[in-house]
Amino acid sequence: MNRKQLVDEIKKKNSYLCIGLDTDLSKIPQHLLTEPDPVFAFNKQIIDATRQYCVAYKPNIAFYEAMGPKGWESLQKTVEYIPKNLFTIADAKRGDIGNTSSMYAKAFFEQMTFDAITVAPYMGEDSVKPFLEFKDKWVIVLAHTSNKGSADFQLMTSQASGKKLYEEVILKSQSWGTPDNLMFVVGATQADKIAGIRKLAPDHFFLVPGIGVQGGDLAEVSKAGLTKDCGLLVNSSRAIIYASSGKDFAKAAQAEARNVQQEMKMLLSGIN
Amino acid sequence: MNRKQLVDEIKKKNSYLCIGLDTDLSKIPQHLLTEPDPVFAFNKQIIDATRQYCVAYKPNIAFYEAMGPKGWESLQKTVEYIPKNLFTIADAKRGDIGNTSSMYAKAFFEQMTFDAITVAPYMGEDSVKPFLEFKDKWVIVLAHTSNKGSADFQLMTSQASGKKLYEEVILKSQSWGTPDNLMFVVGATQADKIAGIRKLAPDHFFLVPGIGVQGGDLAEVSKAGLTKDCGLLVNSSRAIIYASSGKDFAKAAQAEARNVQQEMKMLLSGIN
Repeated sequence: MNRKQLVDEIKKKNSYLCIGLDTDLSKIPQHLLTEPDPVFAFNKQIIDATRQYCVAYKPNIAFYEAMGPKGWESLQKTVEYIPKNLFTIADAKRGDIGNTSSMYAKAFFEQMTFDAITVAPYMGEDSVKPFLEFKDKWVIVLAHTSNKGSADFQLMTSQASGKKLYEEVILKSQSWGTPDNLMFVVGATQADKIAGIRKLAPDHFFLVPGIGVQGGDLAEVSKAGLTKDCGLLVNSSRAIIYASSGKDFAKAAQAEARNVQQEMKMLLSGIN
Repeated sequence: MNRKQLVDEIKKKNSYLCIGLDTDLSKIPQHLLTEPDPVFAFNKQIIDATRQYCVAYKPNIAFYEAMGPKGWESLQKTVEYIPKNLFTIADAKRGDIGNTSSMYAKAFFEQMTFDAITVAPYMGEDSVKPFLEFKDKWVIVLAHTSNKGSADFQLMTSQASGKKLYEEVILKSQSWGTPDNLMFVVGATQADKIAGIRKLAPDHFFLVPGIGVQGGDLAEVSKAGLTKDCGLLVNSSRAIIYASSGKDFAKAAQAEARNVQQEMKMLLSGIN
């Protein structure tokens, strides 16, 4: 999917909601466990119920990997089931030496048909660039993440530039990709830093995890990060997909997604 | 596998060779492609031919992931086939927020039975710790990698401490694990830095990729990094497993592994 298609979808739906498919056998409603593929059965119903309120889905690859080969089948079926007008993100946080990153790119962009993958920047340019060589595919580089440990290294200040590591990542990686194929992960729990990050990368989309269970605030994030093209994909996982643990789980997820979309509609009206 | 078992195996075999199973369908001998599982058929013959000369195997997870669910089956069969006296490393470079890292740990330590996994430190403590909660399992944290891009961020100097990022990673992560469950990735192409890194982590094992095709020098690495417990696992992948592309590939791999082991035997004799 290219940038125009993504922005058009956002404007059509008045939503920049990304739903995280962190599907965990121990958390999905019990009645699904008799299905031949419970994970796919769950995802299918979540997608059917929420697709009108979101613009992207983000399966968290760890949850599928933990189930072995069967998990990869559930993942593949899920990404194939997601309608083509929705943006798909493999939340994989990969990153390795060049020839290995090329194999990961092949796995997620060719073997599967994701639009985007999250990538860890620690190994530098040649670990990120192989992912940028696919037309209409996107790399989402970890910049400032939403977890507690993000402070351990991401906030280290460079002696040479006076900038923090996450700022160095944002500045340096802009020479590897463009706003048409490169986004950044910026945690919602860092809302106070988003305005500053927006100055460093005025045209890039940010993928913002951390609202919902992790406690980030949608209004604050949006105020600091929205651009005329929206420029944000805000992710919620557990608060939506596990809104109910009963047979009404899809309906409850739909209501939760709709609530977020309604708030986004209001927030978007401020930029148009 | 615990540290004593690993050190005993090293002393018994006079080897600290780790063989990287970067098995790629486009590079394995053509006659194997008619096998029901060509990747496993290749790995099995490589393992049979080389197991007496090495102490560890390191499948590069990307190569299996790129083949979809079938690749995961090949990987699982491979790790189960490796004899229990050899140390197994999932070269996965994972790292995510806590509950997601827990899922990855489950995938590699329970769903599969790897002894160790490589982990990227960018997201900090809670991304690494879940991997450290398994008895006799190991975390191998990326410190200074062997690729060109390693200079992009790993060499950034901290304003506060005057230390480089990779040094901060080594120092900080020592409070998360011990020499009994934590190792570091230190590229062989950074041989000039290994002596300094050894001072920061005198008792930890280092996994050293980058000899062979990537150009690192075994003698230099060993001189700088060996300890009384050896303290090194030096990896070679392509130079061994693709030593020949013909029907004699296993024999050629064996000869190559034996060459490296012979050099290691000599280098080890200096520390005993």
